[in-house]
Amino acid sequence: MNAELPHVLIVGCGFGGLEATKVLDGAPVRVTLIDRSNHHLFQPLLYQVATAGLSAPSIASPIRHMRRHQRNLTVLMAEVTAIDKARREVHLADGQTLSYDHLIVAAGATHSYFGNDQWQAHAPGLKTLADAFKLRARLLSAFEKAETLADRPAEREGWLTFVVIGGGPTGVEMAGTLAEIARHTLKDEFRRIDPSRAKVLLVEGSDRVLAAFKPAQSAQAQAQLERLGVTVRVGCRVVGIDETGVELQKPDGQRERIASHTKVWAAGVAASPLARTLDVPLDRAGRVIVDEHMNIPGHPEVYVVGDMAAAHSLEKDGSRKPVPGVSPGAKQAGRHAARQILARLQGRSEPAFRYRDYGNLATIGRKAAVADLGTIQFSGFSAWLFWLFVHVYFLIGFRNRVRVFADWAWAYFTFQRHARIVVEPQQHGDPEEA
Amino acid sequence: MNAELPHVLIVGCGFGGLEATKVLDGAPVRVTLIDRSNHHLFQPLLYQVATAGLSAPSIASPIRHMRRHQRNLTVLMAEVTAIDKARREVHLADGQTLSYDHLIVAAGATHSYFGNDQWQAHAPGLKTLADAFKLRARLLSAFEKAETLADRPAEREGWLTFVVIGGGPTGVEMAGTLAEIARHTLKDEFRRIDPSRAKVLLVEGSDRVLAAFKPAQSAQAQAQLERLGVTVRVGCRVVGIDETGVELQKPDGQRERIASHTKVWAAGVAASPLARTLDVPLDRAGRVIVDEHMNIPGHPEVYVVGDMAAAHSLEKDGSRKPVPGVSPGAKQAGRHAARQILARLQGRSEPAFRYRDYGNLATIGRKAAVADLGTIQFSGFSAWLFWLFVHVYFLIGFRNRVRVFADWAWAYFTFQRHARIVVEPQQHGDPEEA
Repeated sequence: MNAELPHVLIVGCGFGGLEATKVLDGAPVRVTLIDRSNHHLFQPLLYQVATAGLSAPSIASPIRHMRRHQRNLTVLMAEVTAIDKARREVHLADGQTLSYDHLIVAAGATHSYFGNDQWQAHAPGLKTLADAFKLRARLLSAFEKAETLADRPAEREGWLTFVVIGGGPTGVEMAGTLAEIARHTLKDEFRRIDPSRAKVLLVEGSDRVLAAFKPAQSAQAQAQLERLGVTVRVGCRVVGIDETGVELQKPDGQRERIASHTKVWAAGVAASPLARTLDVPLDRAGRVIVDEHMNIPGHPEVYVVGDMAAAHSLEKDGSRKPVPGVSPGAKQAGRHAARQILARLQGRSEPAFRYRDYGNLATIGRKAAVADLGTIQFSGFSAWLFWLFVHVYFLIGFRNRVRVFADWAWAYFTFQRHARIVVEPQQHGDPEEA
Repeated sequence: MNAELPHVLIVGCGFGGLEATKVLDGAPVRVTLIDRSNHHLFQPLLYQVATAGLSAPSIASPIRHMRRHQRNLTVLMAEVTAIDKARREVHLADGQTLSYDHLIVAAGATHSYFGNDQWQAHAPGLKTLADAFKLRARLLSAFEKAETLADRPAEREGWLTFVVIGGGPTGVEMAGTLAEIARHTLKDEFRRIDPSRAKVLLVEGSDRVLAAFKPAQSAQAQAQLERLGVTVRVGCRVVGIDETGVELQKPDGQRERIASHTKVWAAGVAASPLARTLDVPLDRAGRVIVDEHMNIPGHPEVYVVGDMAAAHSLEKDGSRKPVPGVSPGAKQAGRHAARQILARLQGRSEPAFRYRDYGNLATIGRKAAVADLGTIQFSGFSAWLFWLFVHVYFLIGFRNRVRVFADWAWAYFTFQRHARIVVEPQQHGDPEEA
């Protein structure tokens, strides 16, 4: 590559970073893409890895393999610890620095425990493959642990109670799938416990699940969850989490303790801590407030896109609407940033960012979903088929599509989940200690 | 189940424990099978998981799912820490005890570093799925690390040198596959390094690789490895391993240091430490010396099978031959122990154990192998096809066979390996710290 060409550095290879990289393919720039991991992850299906329905390679691809034909691209697996916007440099964890002419920061989000970081050990979230494997080991090991407690039936209750905290799409997906695993997948496999009697609770602080959807759809989703055996607790705030249970504050203000060894956090996210090193205004979730080109104030060469950014869409009527933290938002913002870089190199500018809203989709178990496509809403089996089509369609790579489709066809007709593998032995009560 | 029936306790669900369990299906006994993990592992293909060719579910199945139809079986995921043969009890890590009438111990083997346990952190072995994931992360991260070292070419050498220690079947498979990954799988994917210039060394202390085979076949295997780009160093003893390299003692007594960040231990195994808690005579590898029915002295109700046992086969000519530490040996011994339990319940005894030797097979990369079937020996592509057929045939479950075959067909024609996923980010030089 010609070292004289402008250097575009992209931090993070989620949906935003990957789209930006693609736009720059063939352009007269040098591109460096840095990610902490070696793979792009199709996060919308991560809950399937956590619940043993899919194996990791089905939803993850090595970045350098996906982009091997892009000749102006160098992929580095490294961790960016800080950004020095004055010197136009980023610092890597191994002490190296990299300079840039244009920077796109797309480092995503992490879990937020709203100041209760001690909850993290007891209620892990779901952002990375490592998270998914940890959750998978805990979920499956809980049933195993209950089966070993022949002489201690009183202890079993807590091992057969699963609490999912947060009623957004991830929480709804996790709770629905967990109920199915208990009712169907594990059927007839235990001798001392009945997995179908396991309790799955979905706890949501607001008054309905799937708050991004219309109220009627929230009600449909809740009914579908309850049909699967999930206990939905809306209006309940989590005020405590420890190794053996969860403390709730009910709508009437009273407190209730639920004995549960296995908790899943799907309640809050915060922008990557890298945002703070930019030294620019952040919103309450730690997101970088960006302008109509995803730039930070005073630095048209620095872009922040995706879950790290608080971005707005300039609507046709001149109003400004927040861009939601979903994959189409990240993709469109990533593309916009890359196009704006190319425009600026030609002395032009793109029109202000406008978000194209394709609607909202959430799935609930193996044959129900809710879809809100703006003009129409539908739910149930037709929504589930639509969800399936959309997700398999957007999944990375032909081979992964075929694999996932085959895995699902198998799972659908047999109720089996092929990836029920606990990699680390989980023995001593607290799975994460093993 | 009828609690009056004799209780057979089986510790470990490798090849030996699983076969014993199957023999007892439908018999008038209660069976409890305990394993530290939730899955049976098809260990002969574990190196494929370590080298990203297969994902974990392809070679592992949940034990309780495999045996869900066996009504007289209870499966427990738990760790046995000690055996009290006088009280006929086993102790679990969580403090529970389980009593037995008949006990089959099949807890397998672990790595042996010949008294140099400090080597383990730098040269992990390959026995469990957790081992395979650790190795996979190290192998793939080494190339990634080399790519990041733009300004430090001198450091790259050690990241692009891979040392496999031990020239048995596992070492030969690992070295051959590693050479293929460097030459073919990663081709065109890096911008600053040329992966095909990576060095793969196979170090063996004796004077030839695959010592269990005939000398002519060892020579063929070495030639095939060298054709793949592996440097085979026979007659070299490893005398030191640290984070950045390996120290060899050459045949002439001189020492040589090889700079390498990535080492694989395939040199020595020792029986599970559980053997020591039996308080009976062990051989030098810590294996329990068992009689012609796999019993320990004075305890016809206690059997030890598989890699934990030093067993002998009573040949037709009356001679006694050691049973090799391979999967057919473990399977046959497991079956023998279970049959002897049933025979004793009927007041009979089985004839003394006789090992049926089907021969030896080892594969070298994607189209060569060596086979020694006793009466005939062959090598090259025909041996590779034979190896493929045997391994897929014996693999657990129809679905896994189809998956593995599909994965291999894909890998064979595209040179790609679909499971190239590093789950834990590996950053700071020493991958295991991440």
